[in-house]
Amino acid sequence: MKSEQKTKFTIMFDGTLLHGWQVQKNVPTVQSTVQDALYKIFGERLSVTGCSRTDAGVHARNFVCCLDRTVNMENSAFVSAMNANLPDFVRVKEAETADAAFHPRYSCIGKEYVYNIWNEKYSNPFLRNYAMFYPRFIDIDKISFVGEELCGKHDFTSFMAKGSKITDDTVREIKYCKFSKDGGLLKITVCADGFLYNMVRIIAGTVLYASQGKIKKGGIAGIIDAKDRSFAGPTAPACGLFLNRVFY
Amino acid sequence: MKSEQKTKFTIMFDGTLLHGWQVQKNVPTVQSTVQDALYKIFGERLSVTGCSRTDAGVHARNFVCCLDRTVNMENSAFVSAMNANLPDFVRVKEAETADAAFHPRYSCIGKEYVYNIWNEKYSNPFLRNYAMFYPRFIDIDKISFVGEELCGKHDFTSFMAKGSKITDDTVREIKYCKFSKDGGLLKITVCADGFLYNMVRIIAGTVLYASQGKIKKGGIAGIIDAKDRSFAGPTAPACGLFLNRVFY
Repeated sequence: MKSEQKTKFTIMFDGTLLHGWQVQKNVPTVQSTVQDALYKIFGERLSVTGCSRTDAGVHARNFVCCLDRTVNMENSAFVSAMNANLPDFVRVKEAETADAAFHPRYSCIGKEYVYNIWNEKYSNPFLRNYAMFYPRFIDIDKISFVGEELCGKHDFTSFMAKGSKITDDTVREIKYCKFSKDGGLLKITVCADGFLYNMVRIIAGTVLYASQGKIKKGGIAGIIDAKDRSFAGPTAPACGLFLNRVFY
Repeated sequence: MKSEQKTKFTIMFDGTLLHGWQVQKNVPTVQSTVQDALYKIFGERLSVTGCSRTDAGVHARNFVCCLDRTVNMENSAFVSAMNANLPDFVRVKEAETADAAFHPRYSCIGKEYVYNIWNEKYSNPFLRNYAMFYPRFIDIDKISFVGEELCGKHDFTSFMAKGSKITDDTVREIKYCKFSKDGGLLKITVCADGFLYNMVRIIAGTVLYASQGKIKKGGIAGIIDAKDRSFAGPTAPACGLFLNRVFY
């Protein structure tokens, strides 16, 4: 089963019951769940690399993983075998053979996240694990400036969780940050070449600040320039966050 | 709290953990959940009438309930009090005062249901309780005739669960039965003046039969005319069914 090539596969997961990507003792994680399925199929403990560490409760529609070898079966058979051995909150969507040089995290040139906010007076039973509930009305025309002003290459220290290990390389380029509303569901879609720890959740909290009038048009530059986490809005809850796409 | 008027209120519920509408011994139902919340607020056991009996696992976006009295608070305060006392899988969306003659079931002139089918090769972690998973590709252009041919006033005995209590009045009028597909999610939207037991789930199963080529264009009339349940498709699972709207 060893080879110079790798098996790249894309998964979708409901993170509600999972403690993020990385293997941890005594709690289920995405990585341990995927590795357990591989063990059931191949009878050996194989290590899987992921495109991103994610927090507990965060979801993914397209999360890219990699196994450092090819498998002795068709990729489509690998997808079926994995789905037959995974719990129903994790699914493999597709698999392909990748070059030895491929790495899900280091080869990545960009990611798109979606943050869901359920913006009605009552919470939504169907979205209780998939959106932040925020009852105060948000007018997307009044927050669109936040998305426009965040775009571009900046030092996003103000939008990084305190205590984050990354402190030297905090410059990221946001390609777009858009808002849409369909009934009570507000979606924040953000694409960047990379993200700092909790960056999208802090952007979501900052959007809420703007909707409350706490940040005025033109005010994002000042928050960025401060390079101080306390200038941005609060960190929105994990359940609203979805890793939507990964670009290579 | 007694009065000639009634309190009509609309709820939304995730039916996954609920055993349908009607109170039953030892299992949670929508009616018992709503009545428990009323008890917490008013300190007495009040009976609530619903617009429909629903099966275990069936969901609702707009389910109309009625309390046979007005409440000694503003309707908006009633909504808030209910939501503070209901579990998060049941929400009250709005409440209004209705005439004494109003009855959620008998005053109803039509209902709209949506049946969700997740039509991809892999199941969807986010829809595991909210859609039927059906991996074989469905071309909606090839099933649209089913919707067209079901429309109108017919005796729908063939689309009623065997053993149903209703046997004398099996004529219903389907106003529309439409299909839409957004990515992997196929939605069947059906509106009728009323529905027989399991009617929408049997329509969904019949749509699947048509997608498999088991029913050809022009074949629905024969199924209706047979007045025999065995002529229609299988009963699709409860989890895909949503009561979407109720008309008065």
